[in-house]
Formats: sequence, structure tokens, C-alpha cells
Amino acid sequence: MNMVEIITQKKLGRPLTPEMIRTFVAGAADRSIPDYQLSALLMAIRLNGMTAEETTELTLAMRDSGDVADLSAIPGVKVDKHSTGGVGDTTTLVLAPLVAACGVPVAKMSGRGLGHTGGTLDKLESIPGFSVSLSEEAFVRQVQEIGLAVIGQTGTLAPADKTLYALRDVTATVDSLPLIASSIMSKKLASGADAIVLDVKTGSGAIMQTLEGSIELARAMVDIGTLAGKPVTAVVTGMAQPLGTHVGNALEVKDAIDVLSGRTKGDLLAVSLLLGSHMLMLAGAADTPAEGEAKLRRALESGAGLEKLRQMIRAQGGDPRVCDDLSLLPRAAVQRTVTVGREGWVAAMDTTALGLAAQAMGAGRIRKTDVLDYAVGFILPVRIGDHVTPDTPLCTLFARSEAEAETAEAAIRRAITIGETPVAPSPLWYAVVTRDGVVRAE
Amino acid sequence: MNMVEIITQKKLGRPLTPEMIRTFVAGAADRSIPDYQLSALLMAIRLNGMTAEETTELTLAMRDSGDVADLSAIPGVKVDKHSTGGVGDTTTLVLAPLVAACGVPVAKMSGRGLGHTGGTLDKLESIPGFSVSLSEEAFVRQVQEIGLAVIGQTGTLAPADKTLYALRDVTATVDSLPLIASSIMSKKLASGADAIVLDVKTGSGAIMQTLEGSIELARAMVDIGTLAGKPVTAVVTGMAQPLGTHVGNALEVKDAIDVLSGRTKGDLLAVSLLLGSHMLMLAGAADTPAEGEAKLRRALESGAGLEKLRQMIRAQGGDPRVCDDLSLLPRAAVQRTVTVGREGWVAAMDTTALGLAAQAMGAGRIRKTDVLDYAVGFILPVRIGDHVTPDTPLCTLFARSEAEAETAEAAIRRAITIGETPVAPSPLWYAVVTRDGVVRAE
Repeated sequence: MNMVEIITQKKLGRPLTPEMIRTFVAGAADRSIPDYQLSALLMAIRLNGMTAEETTELTLAMRDSGDVADLSAIPGVKVDKHSTGGVGDTTTLVLAPLVAACGVPVAKMSGRGLGHTGGTLDKLESIPGFSVSLSEEAFVRQVQEIGLAVIGQTGTLAPADKTLYALRDVTATVDSLPLIASSIMSKKLASGADAIVLDVKTGSGAIMQTLEGSIELARAMVDIGTLAGKPVTAVVTGMAQPLGTHVGNALEVKDAIDVLSGRTKGDLLAVSLLLGSHMLMLAGAADTPAEGEAKLRRALESGAGLEKLRQMIRAQGGDPRVCDDLSLLPRAAVQRTVTVGREGWVAAMDTTALGLAAQAMGAGRIRKTDVLDYAVGFILPVRIGDHVTPDTPLCTLFARSEAEAETAEAAIRRAITIGETPVAPSPLWYAVVTRDGVVRAE
Repeated sequence: MNMVEIITQKKLGRPLTPEMIRTFVAGAADRSIPDYQLSALLMAIRLNGMTAEETTELTLAMRDSGDVADLSAIPGVKVDKHSTGGVGDTTTLVLAPLVAACGVPVAKMSGRGLGHTGGTLDKLESIPGFSVSLSEEAFVRQVQEIGLAVIGQTGTLAPADKTLYALRDVTATVDSLPLIASSIMSKKLASGADAIVLDVKTGSGAIMQTLEGSIELARAMVDIGTLAGKPVTAVVTGMAQPLGTHVGNALEVKDAIDVLSGRTKGDLLAVSLLLGSHMLMLAGAADTPAEGEAKLRRALESGAGLEKLRQMIRAQGGDPRVCDDLSLLPRAAVQRTVTVGREGWVAAMDTTALGLAAQAMGAGRIRKTDVLDYAVGFILPVRIGDHVTPDTPLCTLFARSEAEAETAEAAIRRAITIGETPVAPSPLWYAVVTRDGVVRAE
């Protein structure tokens, strides 16, 4: 069995055997197969596809290429949540405390931002003192004690995926459904959770820009979970505009605290409740989404959710007073609010362009080694469908300099289309996919 | 314009622009584009194809990536001949002297063997003293003086093709019509000939195994020549069995000398006359293939062809007495003739397997750095369609040891199918493709 035979098989459109998949994944993990052969295979997969069986086999082989976290010391059903990546999308900081406050343990490994999307770890690190680097033992102990921990990867999770993901990025093979699905699921399965809720974004800022493509991706990941013996629910949510009104690391922490304090009730809260209710269902803590949502709302209104966030910040070395005094978060040198300047309706947003505008301000990474400025970003109070007048605030910029604020303002204006006729609001979610099938929003 | 954009374009099945093609070819030539990006693009080309315009642009860009030989100091129309690679296929050693003897200059750059097919340079080097390394000046001078020279590449011809060819070999992207056509034609155009006759093999030992695929490849290369302003005639010939009866370097030199001496009149002579007659036509030395063939036959019968070979061997430092005393060629330690062992008809041959058997004996290279044994190989007097009895000689082996002879014998027996019913002989040629269209054999 050599790599040329494996590439040939996929080139001819034939399914790879489990042995072939295990062979190339092992070679990707230990770097014994040259990149030029892996990239030829990735392109053949991108163009000729993979069956559900191949995709699952690939996922499991990548999971097994590294460490698999053992969360069995934590009692109860551990439910993980993963988003395919959005802008202003900080549901983890809202729903993880709420779910934990409902008595369901949340032991979550998160990632950093790259490109136009943010990462939960970066947001948490904007809280003074907060550490995302815990040993697996400390991680498990913290969840046993307070029911909640959000950390970076422990050990080496799915090193084969790491090799393949880096290659896909530079060989135009990111947009392959089996490669996306297996990449996400290999890492989630290696993180040790018993069940997984996936937030599959759709729209201008998402990895899958069409609804049908997003539903197909959701279905593929649910199928993998089923074949791997882990219940998975995937919710397809909208990314036609940033989810929350805040974009930037400390700004998104502020947004989450505002939501958990009851001061803000927008789309970020709604999607957090939706995803959280499915987490409660998978954990056996709710029988219906409505029951789950009611429990989460009670945790919100009682302040139990915010208290759980405080406990986690304290446990991970951060300053818990940020939950009550937002001025303790980093603040940008330049703050400026600009207005829309014309009358009309907010018709569309280029979410990717908005994410890139925040990245250019210093909130995101172009290269993995870039150092972030936690304070920068923008608040965007307008939503698709809003009627605006010339004096309506368009956004508040938080920048390192007047020049960078000006560049960001121009980029944001370009990314937002103001139309002359009324526009319907953008749906929050489109479909819920489980092993039982697809339920579409009405 | 970056490489990811270029890969994306071909991934989506869209034609590459001339600028895109020039960009990636330049990066392949100077190695500034990483192999993993080139191989992803090669796989996308293999699966999504290229238009005739793209293929021509690719050919010209690869030609221009290195030196282009200048043969203008040689009077007359210089016609080159190229074979897509066969087994026991030594037409160059037969037709080049015959064409030169008809007064048409032959200034030919040849290659070395790799894999199961032999290379003209290796065969010539089996002649004691023969040198294939001439400067471009010495090459041109020799053709001016005696009308014939066969050498290795001067300068750096098509370095971009060299990079891409090496990658294709290890990424299962050899079998792409536009990549094969552009690879061959870029080197042929860089060799400086005014017109080109292509011998496109078809059948079990050929790069294109189906007749229609071979005709398509022939047409693609003729089209490139037309667009590049160089007349090209492509003859599709059979490779259902080795062309000559001799396989191995010194053995094929012997086969060519036997033909030029008038002692042997088999398929090797017939195909050499066919290809040679089209060379004479492109050079303006014949109006019809029949007229060209008559001229070549006269050169053969008069001994002018063999004399031209003698002159070339002498001019390039070899011992010209080999033309009259074959015992001066290298001889193998072990020689053994084996018989068929049963009665029947020769029904089929696996030509690739026969080529690999010779390679395993030491006649061919597995790696580029392998050192050849010029003496080894085999003579295979049987042809498809022959009636054989148990005592009919199957082959004469020329090996380094009894053990290697035995291994080769077993491989040759496996490669040759003896059937119980009569079988028609295998056609020598199937089609002639020119800019005016395809003429098929009757």
C-alpha cells in the first residue's frame, strides 16, 4: 500500500478503503508522507468527494492520531458545543454559564481565532489574569467543583487534522464537505464529550454560504456522531450579519456579561438559548427545547448564570469583578461613534468584510503568531431590516489610533448596504438536524 | 495573483488565464512555488481538464522557461521525431540514419529511459566510446558535416516541465492528456526543430492504453504545433507487444544494425519506414508517404543508411566497427534460450510487464540514479498471432546470473498469453493525425 495507489484510487472516483485512510492519516500525523502527496489527495477528495463511510473512517482515524481526553471522572453527561465560526459570535460565554447553572457540567476545549472569525480563548484572555492553559487534571477537577471550565486543548488532539488543515488552507481545498466535517468532528470526539451540539453557520460570513450546503454539512456531522456512538444535534443558524452587536475580544466579553446581566436581549441571547436548550436535551435535563429554554431563562433571571461565569473566571485566575465593573476590561485609546448619514433600511451586510475590518484593527490574526489587541473592535447596533435616519448611530469604533478608526469606518460602511425599501429581518436559525432528520424553521 | 487563486480557478473548473499559467510555470521553473501547491493544481488539472488554448499556453510557457536551441545554422528543414515511449522501440536508431541518408538533416535531442520504457541515449551509450554529451556548437557542426547527430539535451530545456514531471510521477497525475501533451511538446519545441513527427503509442505498454485516448493525445499535440507555428504529424502505432524483437540496450542497437544491414525485416523496420516517410514529407523531400518510403528503402538497400550510422558513431567518439562486428557490443554473462513448452497461438502480451522484466534484469532504471547494465535483456522472436509448438523458441535471455535469468523467464512467461484458437496479428499502426485531420488505417 503506497501513497500513489491511494491517490490513484480517489483520482478515479473510487472509495478509499479503511486501510488506505488509516495509512494516509498516520503519515499526515507523523509527517512521513510528503506534503505534495497529501495535497494531491486533498484535491482529489475535494473534487471527487467521499462517502459517509469514508468520512466517518477519516474522522475516527484523525481522532485516534493523537490524545483523546478522558472526562469520565466528571459525573453526568458532558455536552460540548462547537460553532463553525462566526463574527460577533460569543454564544459560548453566554450559554456555558447558563447550562452549568442548570446543573449540566460543561467541560469545553475551545480554539483561537484565525482569519475573520474570533476565538473564545482570545476573548477570555482579554479578562485580566484569566488563564486558558490548564492540565487535564486541573480541568477535570474544576468541572467537578464548579461545573464549568473553558480551556485550550490539553495534549495533542488530532495531529493529523492539524497537518491536513494547514495544507488545505494553502491549496484551495478548505471548501470540501467531507474534509470540513471530519476536521471538526475529529477534534470534538478527541475532546472527550459524551454528546455534541453543533452551531453550523450559514450566510455571508460562514464556511458554507448556502443554506442547503450548511444543512448537508450539519447532516454529515450528525451522521459521523451517530456512527461514532455520540449523539449530535446540529443547529443551522444565520450569519448574514454579526450575531451579537459587539465585535472584538473584550467587547464580546462585555456583550456576554450584558446578556447574562439581563441588560441586553438580542440575537446573541436568542441563539444562546436555542443552542443551550439542545445541550440540556442531550444531557437529559430537558425533554423539549421549550423546557430547556425555560430552565435557561430562569438561570438568567436569577443571576445564577452570571454567578457561574464569576466562579469560572475566579477559578481560572481572572478578576471576577469584571462581571460587575466593565471598566476593568481593556479600553481602546480612540473611541468614536459615527452615524448612518442617510435614510433607508439596512438591507445587507458582508459579514466576512466586517470580521476582516476587526482583524485589521488588531482584534484578529492574519498569521498564527500575530499578537492581538484585546481592546479594539466595534459595536454595531444596527440590524438587517432596521429603518435608519441620517442621525442613527451606525457604529462605535474602538481603535488604537484615529487613522485606524478611519480605515475601519470606511470598511464598515462598505460592508453595510442601506436600501431604499423596507427589508425583512434576517432569520436567526433555519434548521435543526438530529439523527431523526431535519426540522426546518417555519 | 497568488497561487491559491490559481488553484481555486481550476478547482472550480474554469479555464486558467494566460497570466495564471505563466505565473505558475515561472514558479515551477525557479522553485518559488511550493510543491504542495503545484501538486494540488496538477490534480485539479487532471480532474477538470484544460482547453486547447490553455494547453498551448502551458506548452509555450514551459518551452520559454528555459533555453531554446537555435538550429538555424543548419540549412534545410530540421525534422525531429519523438515517441511517447515503448518497449523494444528503437526506431530512432533505424530511421534517423535512413532520413539523413536521404539528405534531410536530423539534429535530434533524445532522453534516457525511466520505468518500463527504454531511452535512446542509453542504447547509444552501449556502443563502446559513444558520447551523447555535445555542446550546442559541436552538435550543429556535426549535423552540418554529416547530416546526423543524436545527443542529450544541451542547456536547460523546459525546467518548469522537469519540476512538474517529477511531481506528476509521485502524485498520480501522469495520466492527464493536457499535461502529457504540453510536457512532450514543450521539450520538442525547445529543441529547435522546424517540424516534428510524433509516434504516439497505443496499447498495453503505452501511456494511453485506448485507441481513442491515443488519437485524442495525437490531435492535442498536433493542435499545439499548429498554434505554435510548427507542422506536426502524429502517427498512432501499436504497443500491444514490443516493437522490435530485442529488448535491452546493446540488444536494441544490434536489432537496429540488423535492420539497417538488411538482415531483419519486421515490425521495427515497417514502423521506422512509416515514421521516416512522414519526416521526409514534412521536410519537403517527398510528396506522399509512398514516395518517402521508396526513398528510405533505397537508402536501406544501398547501405547508405548503415553508412550514415557508422559516420555518426565515429563522429561521436564510438567504435564504428560495431556496425560490422556485433561481438564488439557488451555481452551478458549468462545466455539461455527457452521454448514455449506448449502448442497454441500467441494471443496477447503485457508489454509493460515485459519492459519491467528487462528493467529488473538491469536494462532499465527504477530510480534516476540507477546504473544500467547495457548487455542484459532478451530477444523475443514470437509475435502476436504466431502459431507455436512446444519446441518453438520463446525467448533468449541475456542476464547477469542464472538466478536473474530465471526470474526474468518467469516474468516473461506470465506476460505472454498462449491461446488455443488462432489470433489475428496485431496492427502496426492505427491512424495518422495532421492539421488536416485524422486518417485511420483500413
